[in-house]
Amino acid sequence: MVLGTKEICRRVIRNQHKLRHYIQQQIRLCSTTSLRTQEAQKQEDDEQPGFTTIRPDFSTVAPKPIEHDPDIGRLFKASELSVRLASPTQLQPKPDVDDLAFGKYFTDHMMKAFYHKSLGGWQKPEITPLESLVLHPAAKVLHYAVELFEGMKAYRGVDGRIRIFRPEMNMHRMNVSAKRSGLPTFDGVEFTKCLSRLVSIDQEWVPHTEAASLYLRPTLIGIDPTLGVASSDSALLYTILCPVGEYFKPGSSGAVSLLADPRYTRAWPGGVGDRKMGSNYAPTIHVQKEAASKGLQQVLWLYGEDHQLTEVGTMNIFMFYINDNGEKELITPPLNGLILPGITRDSILSLARQWGRFKVNEASFTMPQVCQLIKEERLLELFGTGTACVVSPIERIHYLGEDILIPTMEQSKPVFDEVKKALTDIQYGKVDHPWAMIID
Amino acid sequence: MVLGTKEICRRVIRNQHKLRHYIQQQIRLCSTTSLRTQEAQKQEDDEQPGFTTIRPDFSTVAPKPIEHDPDIGRLFKASELSVRLASPTQLQPKPDVDDLAFGKYFTDHMMKAFYHKSLGGWQKPEITPLESLVLHPAAKVLHYAVELFEGMKAYRGVDGRIRIFRPEMNMHRMNVSAKRSGLPTFDGVEFTKCLSRLVSIDQEWVPHTEAASLYLRPTLIGIDPTLGVASSDSALLYTILCPVGEYFKPGSSGAVSLLADPRYTRAWPGGVGDRKMGSNYAPTIHVQKEAASKGLQQVLWLYGEDHQLTEVGTMNIFMFYINDNGEKELITPPLNGLILPGITRDSILSLARQWGRFKVNEASFTMPQVCQLIKEERLLELFGTGTACVVSPIERIHYLGEDILIPTMEQSKPVFDEVKKALTDIQYGKVDHPWAMIID
Repeated sequence: MVLGTKEICRRVIRNQHKLRHYIQQQIRLCSTTSLRTQEAQKQEDDEQPGFTTIRPDFSTVAPKPIEHDPDIGRLFKASELSVRLASPTQLQPKPDVDDLAFGKYFTDHMMKAFYHKSLGGWQKPEITPLESLVLHPAAKVLHYAVELFEGMKAYRGVDGRIRIFRPEMNMHRMNVSAKRSGLPTFDGVEFTKCLSRLVSIDQEWVPHTEAASLYLRPTLIGIDPTLGVASSDSALLYTILCPVGEYFKPGSSGAVSLLADPRYTRAWPGGVGDRKMGSNYAPTIHVQKEAASKGLQQVLWLYGEDHQLTEVGTMNIFMFYINDNGEKELITPPLNGLILPGITRDSILSLARQWGRFKVNEASFTMPQVCQLIKEERLLELFGTGTACVVSPIERIHYLGEDILIPTMEQSKPVFDEVKKALTDIQYGKVDHPWAMIID
Repeated sequence: MVLGTKEICRRVIRNQHKLRHYIQQQIRLCSTTSLRTQEAQKQEDDEQPGFTTIRPDFSTVAPKPIEHDPDIGRLFKASELSVRLASPTQLQPKPDVDDLAFGKYFTDHMMKAFYHKSLGGWQKPEITPLESLVLHPAAKVLHYAVELFEGMKAYRGVDGRIRIFRPEMNMHRMNVSAKRSGLPTFDGVEFTKCLSRLVSIDQEWVPHTEAASLYLRPTLIGIDPTLGVASSDSALLYTILCPVGEYFKPGSSGAVSLLADPRYTRAWPGGVGDRKMGSNYAPTIHVQKEAASKGLQQVLWLYGEDHQLTEVGTMNIFMFYINDNGEKELITPPLNGLILPGITRDSILSLARQWGRFKVNEASFTMPQVCQLIKEERLLELFGTGTACVVSPIERIHYLGEDILIPTMEQSKPVFDEVKKALTDIQYGKVDHPWAMIID
């Protein structure tokens, strides 16, 4: 087939993300490992990037669809997605995996969809080159924190295919946050289709290593240009992507140390501690800074006069210990409104219950109990869990002026390692599991 | 003096905000009242807009200067302020005072100052035409609510001069919020000079009526384009202005009705309820919506098992009642970390203490106490106070499924009216007072 110049240009621009065949020096793969064979590459490139079919067995874990407000208007539709690719000169060099900090580098494209009540509801979603947002200085997000987000990851599996993990859980939580923030809801399946397309376009940004992944940051902000604390009739749903390594640098042992200061409270009954809203994070920064100044990596958030453990930094917390009946038990605080319903948390509970090798419990526990268990040598492990950090063992808590040493790293076959392996085996495609959704 | 065309153009553009002399039809005054005489106008126009000197007696109420972090870098300086005026075609028509809702119309100019740690600290402040902000989609403000603001007003006095009210209090509170949010602090006196210049340039937007004023919204946001919950090394301090009428429409009686639902909590010990951070507002929107759906104007925020009254919507709350000793007493909740340290609140306490006509008390009180006082006919008035609403009488509280009627509007010479008059007399220049700072 002979093509005209115009058509050639059109195709080049449209397919720039595949140009690594021809200009491998310019568009570096996000990898320190060897490239897959040209043959496997060829086969993948011949497949059109497109929407992913959700596997039939996937629905078994899906939460209920969100109920939209009756006046939501036109719904969000993936079939209306348009794509405007970055020009070759806009493409960014990909960083070395060894250089990846969390959220420092961004990929070439982003996804956006506006909602305007006055224009009838959700507008057509679009994928565009990564670009700045243009906001009115009165936009509600800038004054009243009308904003929420999700954290997801795309993993390049050992078979070279890209997977995302339980996206329906993120979509559900995001919609629940939207309702609580007076922002418009959307169909999670439709939005996931657009996300898949975005990841597919920026697929070479998914690191070619198990030591890293591509972080997806779906974000929903209220952009009404009016002061006055009220619902926002205009909103922007967007997603940016960044290749990420470790969320924070643990100590040399591989474990983290925590500041537990009962003077600070992250969340309380009647608040929004169980929603992934921006407003939960700003108040923590000052405390995190205080922890850092003491040489501690994260904050352990306590609640109540009995100093219940609730969360660690931006993670859920788990304890593995020997209970009063002498049984080994994995325990994590319950979903009582004070903690974020973590998807990693839910997955670990589910896996551990399937294994059936130790007791699994959702219940509150306190700092005095932790101290007592250590004294009686019944505390085995403490660890944090979350999408960004996966599983993060804890070795020390600075509490009421004292350093409490946690023997997490002294166990021979620790549970934290086991759950981490089980999760990453699913995420990196070492085992086949309905929680992993393949992006074609 | 004969001027060249270029110079004429330059002067016209520089002085566009004064063009009402020549093109009064095009640039309408923000007023429904008659214009002041041409002579008074002339005199005012002959004065150059510029920085305002703070009156010597003003410092008597000023809070302590803020302590900057040692690594703040270059400080914020008003002497570096540059001005880029809007072109005549950019000027917006001014709305009728009757049409003013809260925060719907904005003036022609805004003020901006960037802070970049990597560039050595505060950059030069500038006044520009009102324009959109261009933000990286990863800017911390959009994800973690790294944002705070202030609310101030400029009043056109009965003598035609423009006044702002206790600006040093807003500047202090803003800096305290900045510290809590991991954002850079600034010199409040320097910033106030820039604000004065901004108001001076947009002076015709200050309504020519006592029924309205010009609202100033200083805002500080974290704009670091990196994900990860942490302090922001880049920030934008900006101010927009809007002519405002009433913050919300009261009922036909002039008083508001409230929803008091103990299931919702605004603030908590160890949180940031006493800081004017964006994160305090998003979680309230949903509850405010619930109040509106019940035909109630505002939310009365309760705290604790005894249902202490803390705030009303975005206002502090006051109760005037007959205490156990049979004395008339004005009471408001104490600054215990759960409520915003309102400047109107502080001013009312100060005025009432000066009057010495009734007891003035800062102490907690509860809903059961309110109910009991009503039963005993000892509750006289309940009202909310704040910059946006000034003083807002309360006539009804919907609490635990019951409507509690408050006799605020039944008093013959109510205290809420008296404090409102005292405040607005200062603000509109009917009395001379060190709290009012004149903008020349």
